[in-house]
Amino acid sequence: MSMNERRLVMATGPTIVDPKILRALSKPTVSSMDPDFGEIFKRALEDLKKVFMTKDDVFVVAGSGTLALEMAVANVVEPGDKVLNIVTGFFGDYFVKIVEAHGAIPKILEIPWGKPAKPEIVKEALKGERFKAVTVTHVETSTGVMNPIREIGEIVHELTDAYYVVDSVCSLGGIEVRVDDWQIDVCASGSQKCIALPPGLALLSANKRVLDYLEKRKTPVNFWYGDFRNWLPVMREPTKKYFATPAVNLIYALAESLEMILAEGLENRFRRHHIFAEAFRAAMKALKLRLVADEGCAADTVTAVYYPEKIEDLVFRNEMKNRGIAVASTLGPLKGKGFRVGHMGNVNQNDIMSTIAAIEATLKSLGYNFNLGVGLAEAENKILSLK
Amino acid sequence: MSMNERRLVMATGPTIVDPKILRALSKPTVSSMDPDFGEIFKRALEDLKKVFMTKDDVFVVAGSGTLALEMAVANVVEPGDKVLNIVTGFFGDYFVKIVEAHGAIPKILEIPWGKPAKPEIVKEALKGERFKAVTVTHVETSTGVMNPIREIGEIVHELTDAYYVVDSVCSLGGIEVRVDDWQIDVCASGSQKCIALPPGLALLSANKRVLDYLEKRKTPVNFWYGDFRNWLPVMREPTKKYFATPAVNLIYALAESLEMILAEGLENRFRRHHIFAEAFRAAMKALKLRLVADEGCAADTVTAVYYPEKIEDLVFRNEMKNRGIAVASTLGPLKGKGFRVGHMGNVNQNDIMSTIAAIEATLKSLGYNFNLGVGLAEAENKILSLK
Repeated sequence: MSMNERRLVMATGPTIVDPKILRALSKPTVSSMDPDFGEIFKRALEDLKKVFMTKDDVFVVAGSGTLALEMAVANVVEPGDKVLNIVTGFFGDYFVKIVEAHGAIPKILEIPWGKPAKPEIVKEALKGERFKAVTVTHVETSTGVMNPIREIGEIVHELTDAYYVVDSVCSLGGIEVRVDDWQIDVCASGSQKCIALPPGLALLSANKRVLDYLEKRKTPVNFWYGDFRNWLPVMREPTKKYFATPAVNLIYALAESLEMILAEGLENRFRRHHIFAEAFRAAMKALKLRLVADEGCAADTVTAVYYPEKIEDLVFRNEMKNRGIAVASTLGPLKGKGFRVGHMGNVNQNDIMSTIAAIEATLKSLGYNFNLGVGLAEAENKILSLK
Repeated sequence: MSMNERRLVMATGPTIVDPKILRALSKPTVSSMDPDFGEIFKRALEDLKKVFMTKDDVFVVAGSGTLALEMAVANVVEPGDKVLNIVTGFFGDYFVKIVEAHGAIPKILEIPWGKPAKPEIVKEALKGERFKAVTVTHVETSTGVMNPIREIGEIVHELTDAYYVVDSVCSLGGIEVRVDDWQIDVCASGSQKCIALPPGLALLSANKRVLDYLEKRKTPVNFWYGDFRNWLPVMREPTKKYFATPAVNLIYALAESLEMILAEGLENRFRRHHIFAEAFRAAMKALKLRLVADEGCAADTVTAVYYPEKIEDLVFRNEMKNRGIAVASTLGPLKGKGFRVGHMGNVNQNDIMSTIAAIEATLKSLGYNFNLGVGLAEAENKILSLK
């Protein structure tokens, strides 16, 4: 591999993976039925419950976050069911595609990119129809918008008996996700963002209401690899039951990462994410760059930034790369109009400051007019004021 | 992790993972859209085509081998379609479950465990009905039986226009799998057996006939994460297109492993598997142990062995484990009646001989009557005669 291995991954997932995690990942692979591995797997599952803040069942399945989204939908939806899909960006639309693939009928509540799904709009959309499920994205990775999951959950459960399905791929482990308190019936996440592992694990929670429903639904789950009932025995007695071969090495890494997360403490971790997100946004504003997410709904995990006029996407990102920092492009209708920075997982102050410094240097070299250092100064001020 | 990291993994998958692979696995995680990673991914895909022996498209997807089986079926089967499922053991039955989950109608051609699906029986089963697909397991991991994939393929294509779907999870990279020559329409495999990676990657091939069909099928594929059309742009232009986040570190390891496989040479690799399989089987027979697979259909990748009378499964496997060697239990109706040894992937002569030695020592300590060393001697003879 010829690539620069010291490149700072400030993209939107994968994020920066700690060397400790990489060492856990590369421990010798044992049999997936080995009881010693079972102990590691069991510990990972117990810790994952703490991170999801649930007493109910959690699932660790080989696959990407997209697989987690499909599992979440397929278990609670049957052909012909109506589903309210709250779409605030690129990944909200994934739920629509999945609902359609499984023969259900999506009703799309489309919110303009950059704006959140306000609870009163959701309330309105729920009126007059009976929905089997409501899907929503906690943090829309394409825009950096955070949706009010608790408040929407209250409305969904107050007005309907729909299953509340939440995509927490870009929030779990970085900002508050309270599965039990917020009455999230199925919560779908992935390993490669705030959990700060390499990609390859789908992480889910499902509550008793969902598992009860699975016993009485009219049609079988039309997704065998994704059927919670196939995985449940394995998740309750790791290595004593078999369904499909678990991703042994990624689970070593998961156990290690969750241990690091809980050692830091969830509240401390959320606070750290908040401080660096605020610092990054303050820097972008000081540079007179416009953010995609509206004030007040900006997520503490990822920020999408519009380019100023005359800055070319590929040129900008390539120059950032040459400065040793990977940032992401924007997606869909925003493609080419901005860039995205993931400030989540293991991100620290050095990472944030060097990213801002590289953005300043790159913009300056591309002819954008501003006083060098204003972004950095604003970020430092913000960090000092919040710490 | 407290486990014995020198334990020899002679289980049926994961298999022994080379330290070189573990080092590749633990390289720093970069962005999944990083062009440098794209080059590695592209090389892995090109090499994977060589291993599948196909000029058509291949797919590398985060997930287990079971996911690969479901992808294989879901793309070529629509609700109401009839599928002939050739079931020769535990994993053949997975296809039946998957066919049912996707609303199609399985016709099960059940072969007694330990016996292969003879082409003439398949011919008979195909008569009088129209099948959309025929599924078969190349090597049944539960029994160590190898089915005649080429011959069955000839019959399927001669008599029907069904899609020929083959599970090569326990054969690809260890014994001959000729996707193009054998007219396999979809071939589904995984990373953790003869490819000798940790578990976590589904590997598939699909030919033009399948991709053409996807454009004209009556109903949408009811599996979004598994729809070949969602992955095709990514597999043709890695990192230039996005669908779901690829498992970056496992793909580093895949690229490394495929390079090692092609450096050894496929024919040499098949020969190595054959020699050690023959040696292992000769040793078991010398010990008067009965094999599950009939003579003439024994796979060169895995062997299932019946216990002699009075040997308890858990006691045997635990004693093997204490001797530093992991072997697998038998499954389903054979549970408790035997053990399975995977002699595939990176297996070498030392691994085979120490496994046989540990089996001898364990059987002797459990009171089984035989002359110590007869298995080892027979294995050595076999290796000498075949090399």
